[in-house]
Amino acid sequence: MQPFMSTAYITRKERFNSAHRLFRPEFSDEQNLKVFGKCSNPNWHGHNYTLHVTVKGEVSPETGFVADLKDLSHVINEKVIIKLDHRNINLEVDFMKGKLASTENLAISIWNELEEAVEKLGAKLHSIRVEETENNQAEYFGK
Amino acid sequence: MQPFMSTAYITRKERFNSAHRLFRPEFSDEQNLKVFGKCSNPNWHGHNYTLHVTVKGEVSPETGFVADLKDLSHVINEKVIIKLDHRNINLEVDFMKGKLASTENLAISIWNELEEAVEKLGAKLHSIRVEETENNQAEYFGK
Amino acid sequence: MQPFMSTAYITRKERFNSAHRLFRPEFSDEQNLKVFGKCSNPNWHGHNYTLHVTVKGEVSPETGFVADLKDLSHVINEKVIIKLDHRNINLEVDFMKGKLASTENLAISIWNELEEAVEKLGAKLHSIRVEETENNQAEYFGK
Amino acid sequence: MQPFMSTAYITRKERFNSAHRLFRPEFSDEQNLKVFGKCSNPNWHGHNYTLHVTVKGEVSPETGFVADLKDLSHVINEKVIIKLDHRNINLEVDFMKGKLASTENLAISIWNELEEAVEKLGAKLHSIRVEETENNQAEYFGK
Amino acid sequence: MQPFMSTAYITRKERFNSAHRLFRPEFSDEQNLKVFGKCSNPNWHGHNYTLHVTVKGEVSPETGFVADLKDLSHVINEKVIIKLDHRNINLEVDFMKGKLASTENLAISIWNELEEAVEKLGAKLHSIRVEETENNQAEYFGK
Amino acid sequence: MQPFMSTAYITRKERFNSAHRLFRPEFSDEQNLKVFGKCSNPNWHGHNYTLHVTVKGEVSPETGFVADLKDLSHVINEKVIIKLDHRNINLEVDFMKGKLASTENLAISIWNELEEAVEKLGAKLHSIRVEETENNQAEYFGK
Repeated sequence: MQPFMSTAYITRKERFNSAHRLFRPEFSDEQNLKVFGKCSNPNWHGHNYTLHVTVKGEVSPETGFVADLKDLSHVINEKVIIKLDHRNINLEVDFMKGKLASTENLAISIWNELEEAVEKLGAKLHSIRVEETENNQAEYFGK
Repeated sequence: MQPFMSTAYITRKERFNSAHRLFRPEFSDEQNLKVFGKCSNPNWHGHNYTLHVTVKGEVSPETGFVADLKDLSHVINEKVIIKLDHRNINLEVDFMKGKLASTENLAISIWNELEEAVEKLGAKLHSIRVEETENNQAEYFGK
Repeated sequence: MQPFMSTAYITRKERFNSAHRLFRPEFSDEQNLKVFGKCSNPNWHGHNYTLHVTVKGEVSPETGFVADLKDLSHVINEKVIIKLDHRNINLEVDFMKGKLASTENLAISIWNELEEAVEKLGAKLHSIRVEETENNQAEYFGK
Repeated sequence: MQPFMSTAYITRKERFNSAHRLFRPEFSDEQNLKVFGKCSNPNWHGHNYTLHVTVKGEVSPETGFVADLKDLSHVINEKVIIKLDHRNINLEVDFMKGKLASTENLAISIWNELEEAVEKLGAKLHSIRVEETENNQAEYFGK
Repeated sequence: MQPFMSTAYITRKERFNSAHRLFRPEFSDEQNLKVFGKCSNPNWHGHNYTLHVTVKGEVSPETGFVADLKDLSHVINEKVIIKLDHRNINLEVDFMKGKLASTENLAISIWNELEEAVEKLGAKLHSIRVEETENNQAEYFGK
Repeated sequence: MQPFMSTAYITRKERFNSAHRLFRPEFSDEQNLKVFGKCSNPNWHGHNYTLHVTVKGEVSPETGFVADLKDLSHVINEKVIIKLDHRNINLEVDFMKGKLASTENLAISIWNELEEAVEKLGAKLHSIRVEETENNQAEYFGK
């Protein structure tokens, strides 16, 4: 339908609401408070996280798509959102077990959950961006 | 300085990030799940709450203000934000003890915490609006 | 669980993406252009509409809710969004047949679709707000 | 075209970027600093103001409009924005002369500039809301 | 006026509201529904699109600008917005003729419309980002 | 605690409200008006600026952080915000003296103020993005 074959990037935004706590289990509450501040509260706190998944690939002349954003949304929900939303990141999320529940580690771990699944859609994962608050965010582009 | 004496409304927006859970202690986890859905997760979840406090009053010819928004912000932080931010609403917030941690009850309870303090600023509390997510919010205008 | 019985307002935000055109069928394209400007384009244009549904009611001591926002969302989707989203408002939406597809008329017609259903949730419809663009919106509070 | 005759509210959002200073000319800089804080900086500061003008009226069966939002936008720009945008509110805006340049006084003065002009559009001015920052705003509903 | 000569990026945001449909003319409506889902509705739907144009270049010591954003806005409006806004992308936009009306193809085609005109402003086009909804967007950086 | 060692990017968003004017002192007001338009108003105008500081670095296995965002926020406030907020950029900001107060120059100058301080936090400054209005922004990635 169209002669050109071009590489483009598409981004899907999803959301999850979770509890978390920043702490090291070998530290006392006082030590954790000193290193992580109020984010180490032993009774947890939480956030409305926003997740931006960007994938890159050739625009298909059949569909005009890099990948179908409905399929990408489905994959993100199946692999990531369903495990994080209305959950405790420290206690209940398999892919965060044994890791500090920082925004950086969330971005890296979500990358690892999605990398292969995105390839099955015929595209390549480009970046994972996680907004914890309107002022704080982390982004990961792979190793 | 200016002849007119008019009633206006001013609104201050503040934020807090908290963990919570919707549940009735006399219910089993299964019963709570049936009534409150995934919001009843026993391991908690959390939100970036946004709070809008609107007060009304006469515009002072001395200052051009209904009330000084810096003072209003200070009052909201002292009475409400410091108790909610990075806290567990069910376990740690004195003015939510024994109440269901719904957005509606948060709005009502914050009203009760602020009503007198706003009067000391020379204005009258008009409404408390709490946004739990970008799609869900509650507002309270007093009895 | 809690002694007080208070009236509060809750708002649910939903979205729909539709095509529309402002025109009177008895006018020529030129007359419609003169009255409705570029909004009368015979080949249609469209918007990402945002819908805010506000209901009021007593806060239940059983649940802490005016109404369950999941139920409210379900009702709005069943009665309104499913008919509007990815549709042509002039040609395909039963409750807009024979009406000018203005933001005002959308707000009024959505009110009529939702009024009874909200009562079945034990609350009362308070307002319908429709944002057509970030700069233009209409709100309706009933007759 | 449509049988019902209903009252609705429409809102138009406009923007202006201005310099201002909060101070009383009879005060010294030190006194102004004490009362108005950093907002009294004698070298000025500024804001991206957002203005929301809400008008109410019957929905015309001819157009589906309370008023044509293009006309409302035109009136707001002619009467208000052109005088405020890229201007110094204290020094250059005729309708703010001799008034403290607070958000409250801006809302009241903009009301006075627009009230009659909105009536000529066949509607009634309902409220003027001015956002000075994302956290601070004032609203005025007339005397 | 200033000694340094640095490369910077500037971004101008514009908007357009259009109708579109995703479909292949050689497919039946049923086939199109299977491939493109509700986006293939034969009666069209539409969006409030947001367009971000980023250009890069040296910051001029004469003006402090990479390029004058008023000029960039003028070019974007002349070349792109005027053709898309309140139009049907499939039927009325010359530079989208014969192409699938996907967000990816919009970004690529807008790049082609703007590339030369941006060079005449003394800068270089860096990226075109098109947001179709708050959750879906495409970005193109050239061949 | 976690085996992997990965590079990630974190972004902190801060705000400042300032007055400024675009002009060359050797030009007359008329010449400045011709080159800089209404931005050259001799009585100043102003903006709510938004500043996004992105730093990159290895994610520490001790903290899960590239850098502590509270520390990054503290540095940005100490070095930049305190000098810009509620100030006149042309008259009062030491690091803008003798420079045109454009968004591009603000981004470049803020980079120079922060580059070393970010290194002391154990990370590397990646980009400075300054939004002057919702439609206009500049970004700088260093020499």
